[in-house]
Amino acid sequence: MRTETKQLTTRTIDIHSHIYPEPYLELLERRQEIPRIINRDGNREFQIFMQENSSQPTKGRPMGPEYWDIEEKIAFMDKFGIDRSVISLGNPWMDPFPDAAGDEAAVSINKILSGYESSTNGRLVGLGVLPTSCVEAAAETVKTITQTEGLYGAATGPIIAGKQFDDPQLDLFWKEMATYKLPLFIHPENSLPLETLGGYHQSLHFALGFPMETTIAISRLVLSGVMVRFPTLKIIVAHGGGCLPYLGGRMDSVYRAQLTVGNSLPNPPSSYLRQLYLDALVYYAPAFQAEYRLVGEEHLMFGTDHPFSIAEPEINRSTIQGELGNGEIYRKIMERNAINFFGLVDNELR
Amino acid sequence: MRTETKQLTTRTIDIHSHIYPEPYLELLERRQEIPRIINRDGNREFQIFMQENSSQPTKGRPMGPEYWDIEEKIAFMDKFGIDRSVISLGNPWMDPFPDAAGDEAAVSINKILSGYESSTNGRLVGLGVLPTSCVEAAAETVKTITQTEGLYGAATGPIIAGKQFDDPQLDLFWKEMATYKLPLFIHPENSLPLETLGGYHQSLHFALGFPMETTIAISRLVLSGVMVRFPTLKIIVAHGGGCLPYLGGRMDSVYRAQLTVGNSLPNPPSSYLRQLYLDALVYYAPAFQAEYRLVGEEHLMFGTDHPFSIAEPEINRSTIQGELGNGEIYRKIMERNAINFFGLVDNELR
Repeated sequence: MRTETKQLTTRTIDIHSHIYPEPYLELLERRQEIPRIINRDGNREFQIFMQENSSQPTKGRPMGPEYWDIEEKIAFMDKFGIDRSVISLGNPWMDPFPDAAGDEAAVSINKILSGYESSTNGRLVGLGVLPTSCVEAAAETVKTITQTEGLYGAATGPIIAGKQFDDPQLDLFWKEMATYKLPLFIHPENSLPLETLGGYHQSLHFALGFPMETTIAISRLVLSGVMVRFPTLKIIVAHGGGCLPYLGGRMDSVYRAQLTVGNSLPNPPSSYLRQLYLDALVYYAPAFQAEYRLVGEEHLMFGTDHPFSIAEPEINRSTIQGELGNGEIYRKIMERNAINFFGLVDNELR
Repeated sequence: MRTETKQLTTRTIDIHSHIYPEPYLELLERRQEIPRIINRDGNREFQIFMQENSSQPTKGRPMGPEYWDIEEKIAFMDKFGIDRSVISLGNPWMDPFPDAAGDEAAVSINKILSGYESSTNGRLVGLGVLPTSCVEAAAETVKTITQTEGLYGAATGPIIAGKQFDDPQLDLFWKEMATYKLPLFIHPENSLPLETLGGYHQSLHFALGFPMETTIAISRLVLSGVMVRFPTLKIIVAHGGGCLPYLGGRMDSVYRAQLTVGNSLPNPPSSYLRQLYLDALVYYAPAFQAEYRLVGEEHLMFGTDHPFSIAEPEINRSTIQGELGNGEIYRKIMERNAINFFGLVDNELR
């Protein structure tokens, strides 16, 4: 893989990569309820979302050092020819800690995240986490992140400060995000609380529930007019935007059919979906084509989901190459779009 | 539109079209609970699914004669250049009537549905409805439908005889369907019972909840190995398969990542998704490309969702033409695939 990458003189930037710094792991270990980490004599197990563990409430997914060890992250990147990774906390972010102590912890964690760039000679750069005690705290953190060297945006689940994206109280937060044009990486968190997603070793939660959760959250963002009120928002959505690229036409038709009931959105939903940035983490060509057709070559970025990867990075890299070849468009998706979107330093690293 | 159709000498067959015969409307009018029809002095209102009416439990969606009047159906078809429609009952089928009386009503309704072909000189052909008292009754009806002139398949929501598609008790039903190779049209019914789909005049239920419901149901069908055990099943899924064409790659990767936990499916999920037939009712090109790439030109069919249409049929016809032109592939999707799949008489009608 690395040989091929060098031939192309296209660097690979992974914009979807998670890290769980030690102090954050310890916070989760102190919890008795899901989401939490169980530490059995140094062996950690991860319990992220309620539905996942309903049949075995005392058992989690084993966690190895790939979740917290920077050396492991770099080794993964070297193995798969990834030059740089934009890393962020994963689920559940600071959502289980909506108080002053949690907000303080967020400050410490952001300090750690901001330090990776210099300690790894630029191989890793961080996205900050948002405090969850109140909207004001989240909004203030936007400015702080903007002023922090080594942080290039924020990462969040589908809830900010305990509120859905269309809650008018979040306007204070969106205003700050739009003012500073801070990139926001939106990622699913809990799958969906549906009995119909049970069984199959949680396959349905992972394969369907997560993208559906994302889809609903972003739809609320769009339909409530957040992107109309704050047109300079810079948003990138995980896992190719959930199911949004497939449902955008249906959303438009429902929107048009319901204009009579008083819809305040000035344009059809898909016109806002097209303004989003998406990762190319969709694992096969039919889906990649849909997202490519929706948002275009400037709004897609390569990602891996490490260490949660459900497949080797090559599956998505080769999908992009198979569809678009190895030329300029490929280079945009693998490298240039991330540099532009996150404002990364544009230099050689390896 | 009709002129254009004639130029192309491509007929248009609509395989996704609903009808509510009078005796069925009366059954729903007798109900006090959702799903039901409220009849206020001859003005009918339709309450299909719980979530839809939670804020106004005594109010439904107005129903006009387009729901039951065959003349209206034909007028719609003439207006939009549709030569023939494969019509079926819509939600909630016989699901609210899981008893002997309901099974008897299903027989009467199927008689009505089977009569449309001769009474409309072939413009309309019917899909039968399944009784819901027990799996045996549903299974027996498969044979009956096969032997009934004027019926070309069955239509159902995501539950058959009160059971999810992966319930082993349904094998008796799938066996009959596979033996007779009877086409089955699968359609969403209730959206998803999620608070996060609330608001926006039910936009989220219609735009997202229905396709998500479909996606979960078909995923259970696939992951449980129904299509492995009964490889001759002939299934067409409504609304372009929900979100399946976008999530197939993710389903495959989750499947491969979980092989260690004992997954009994011999091939990745998308290999079964490719065996499905889908309607082209996705309302824009990015989604059409995804379904086209997934199932190919032989497994797509034109549909309108009349009288529930959220957009004029032209939006989907022009999407297909825009992507594929007016040639042989277009003709397959508009006409040939439906004739082959349902075994329709191949003649000129208008």
